[in-house]
Amino acid sequence: MPQRNRDTLAATPPFAPNGLVTLTSDFGWRDGYLGAMKGALLSVAAQLRLHDLAHDLAPQDVTHAARVLCSACPRFPAGTVHLAVVDPGVGGARAALVVAAGGHVFVGPDNGLFDPVANLLGAPRQARRIDAGGALAAFLAPAPSATFHGRDVFAPVAGALASGRVGLADIGPVHAAASLELPRADRRGEVLHGVVTHLDRFGNAITNLARSDLHGPLESLHVLLTDGEPLELVQTYEQAAPGATVALVGSDGLLEIAVRDGSAARRLGLAAGAAVRVAPRPDPHRS
Amino acid sequence: MPQRNRDTLAATPPFAPNGLVTLTSDFGWRDGYLGAMKGALLSVAAQLRLHDLAHDLAPQDVTHAARVLCSACPRFPAGTVHLAVVDPGVGGARAALVVAAGGHVFVGPDNGLFDPVANLLGAPRQARRIDAGGALAAFLAPAPSATFHGRDVFAPVAGALASGRVGLADIGPVHAAASLELPRADRRGEVLHGVVTHLDRFGNAITNLARSDLHGPLESLHVLLTDGEPLELVQTYEQAAPGATVALVGSDGLLEIAVRDGSAARRLGLAAGAAVRVAPRPDPHRS
Amino acid sequence: MPQRNRDTLAATPPFAPNGLVTLTSDFGWRDGYLGAMKGALLSVAAQLRLHDLAHDLAPQDVTHAARVLCSACPRFPAGTVHLAVVDPGVGGARAALVVAAGGHVFVGPDNGLFDPVANLLGAPRQARRIDAGGALAAFLAPAPSATFHGRDVFAPVAGALASGRVGLADIGPVHAAASLELPRADRRGEVLHGVVTHLDRFGNAITNLARSDLHGPLESLHVLLTDGEPLELVQTYEQAAPGATVALVGSDGLLEIAVRDGSAARRLGLAAGAAVRVAPRPDPHRS
Repeated sequence: MPQRNRDTLAATPPFAPNGLVTLTSDFGWRDGYLGAMKGALLSVAAQLRLHDLAHDLAPQDVTHAARVLCSACPRFPAGTVHLAVVDPGVGGARAALVVAAGGHVFVGPDNGLFDPVANLLGAPRQARRIDAGGALAAFLAPAPSATFHGRDVFAPVAGALASGRVGLADIGPVHAAASLELPRADRRGEVLHGVVTHLDRFGNAITNLARSDLHGPLESLHVLLTDGEPLELVQTYEQAAPGATVALVGSDGLLEIAVRDGSAARRLGLAAGAAVRVAPRPDPHRS
Repeated sequence: MPQRNRDTLAATPPFAPNGLVTLTSDFGWRDGYLGAMKGALLSVAAQLRLHDLAHDLAPQDVTHAARVLCSACPRFPAGTVHLAVVDPGVGGARAALVVAAGGHVFVGPDNGLFDPVANLLGAPRQARRIDAGGALAAFLAPAPSATFHGRDVFAPVAGALASGRVGLADIGPVHAAASLELPRADRRGEVLHGVVTHLDRFGNAITNLARSDLHGPLESLHVLLTDGEPLELVQTYEQAAPGATVALVGSDGLLEIAVRDGSAARRLGLAAGAAVRVAPRPDPHRS
Repeated sequence: MPQRNRDTLAATPPFAPNGLVTLTSDFGWRDGYLGAMKGALLSVAAQLRLHDLAHDLAPQDVTHAARVLCSACPRFPAGTVHLAVVDPGVGGARAALVVAAGGHVFVGPDNGLFDPVANLLGAPRQARRIDAGGALAAFLAPAPSATFHGRDVFAPVAGALASGRVGLADIGPVHAAASLELPRADRRGEVLHGVVTHLDRFGNAITNLARSDLHGPLESLHVLLTDGEPLELVQTYEQAAPGATVALVGSDGLLEIAVRDGSAARRLGLAAGAAVRVAPRPDPHRS
């Protein structure tokens, strides 16, 4: 994922709420969980402007959710509160967390979910563990459910922060947030090794290989999967013939495998974890 | 579902609109129905703050929708209008309904959809049949479609109420709203009998057995399904080993069967209607 | 689809933004695309009131998306900006487009997506090609992704228009927008021939036959599919016995095939493109 320039980041002001709250979860749209969480948020401050990002995330897949936050949250203006709940450890020992980064604030479980996006947004960065005993006591449910901190802990805290009724210093003690190890590109000689990390709704297979990992102009490279012919690297879907399989650098700067007007996942039987290599093409002028 | 204290409820003020409207339906996110309903609402008052609760409800499953409203709507501040449309009888004899309960207002079909949540919210409670002839005439579609009252009747009425352009007394005559019989727990001797009422997105099987139906501390009880070993009752998913099947009291105070980091529905082949029993465990000190 | 009266339309005022932006796409709710697009919009003007219409549209099905816009967008008040992205040709030669019609504005790809709804909304109508070089330069991403114009082009333009920071004349040159040919009804003698164009979430099969294509009272007609008995034309689902298959005129004025409390798509194995005929019933008084 692209790294922002550190000098620019140094100038980023601290968090000042703009009244926007984004919501991201694996709750889906068929149960009462999402509605209950919104109600808890708006009970703190009915004027907040909520925006749904993604709720059909793969259940309890923290890594996928972390990538979705990387794609979406930095596009919002600074001052936004991002509430995100993908929380397999709810009710257990993991802390409840507020992370500030680059003028944004994230609220949710301390399971690494916010680590990649906070890396992306950069300084000023801090994490605090939600402490039910202090200034937050007025907002939190008196007896939070052991299975639904989204409603009983994270939503009230997000509402209190987004409305300016509490500040970062009121949340609780500074905390060393959990990190999340994403699979990294691995260069061996001239060949770059990576994996498919995600299949999107269109069936595009997104990899962990960033544009900056690819050495040289795209037309000098090709992409190798476990089976089949090498794939050409193109600039846009439109450069491919309808139905052709290609590789290109997608909108988050990551290499992806796509079938024009079709599904690469289905066509090639790709799944998360599938190996992907990028290697120099044999020189076309010599062959 | 938990019952609120009647003395508290007696003090609940009558409905005063706060500008919030929630939307719940079985319309999904792939057709034009939801958008048309939002457009009709905002054509009455463009400043209303709409909040989507759940739209992927099982088509025409009024009982499931009623439970979703119970989970979500009471979490909103009083003064909210809740528009909900799961309406297998559209165009037929059922009335179009406004129900006020506990300072909230519900708008939708008179098929029992609002009965459980109004029981939960309590007094002051009243239901009125939407009368197209009175003060509402200025808001309703002149020739409402026979198949889409969500757009042509409920949305304009919700918009008119939420914006304060009409009051409850303008809706139409007081009406005896349809009730909805939810399956009840049945105690036979020391054994409590219930059923699975709903499978959530995570594959948790939610039952109709409330915490208050369970006699004694949870660790003195176990849960019996038609097949398989008795299930331990735990406080949180985290108390179970990864992959273990357990029972616990979920965030709405109802017993549910869960597989930690997995799907109980898939693992155990549970479906709505499956029998669930809770019985005392054999005394561990004696065995 | 119904045609509005031209004299009424002549009086429609030109676009004046009301701060509402609707969003329609094939992005689904499981990736970061929708969130990134919303962030780009709100980065232009954080106060805009966004409303999600439909995001689970069939991937890259421009015709279906165009019909959804016809159902939903004209229900919004004039002054609304409608951002819609179903864009199989992203990054290719197709223009980026703003279409004004009937006081509404549409922003998205020039692939015919807005042609039917603009026909419906009528005058004053114009289309402009988005020109990155002019007044928009301050809003557009400096190096737009070749695969995600929703985020980098359409969202900023929609935000700039909805907030009044640019006007239609700032967008770029007037442009002849792509048209979209929808299948039309075909009358041969007394028999009207059409097709199923869409299966909705309930399994209703929507056709391209409008009420105005049907000659005479509905009870004098019946509907013929390739297989099976002729279908009765009813006014509402409720007129059918539970489980019965019927035909009726739906909420957009189009003939549809439905199973009461069930799915016509599943029951009859109907798919988009299936042939549908409407013919006079044999006279019941004579037979």
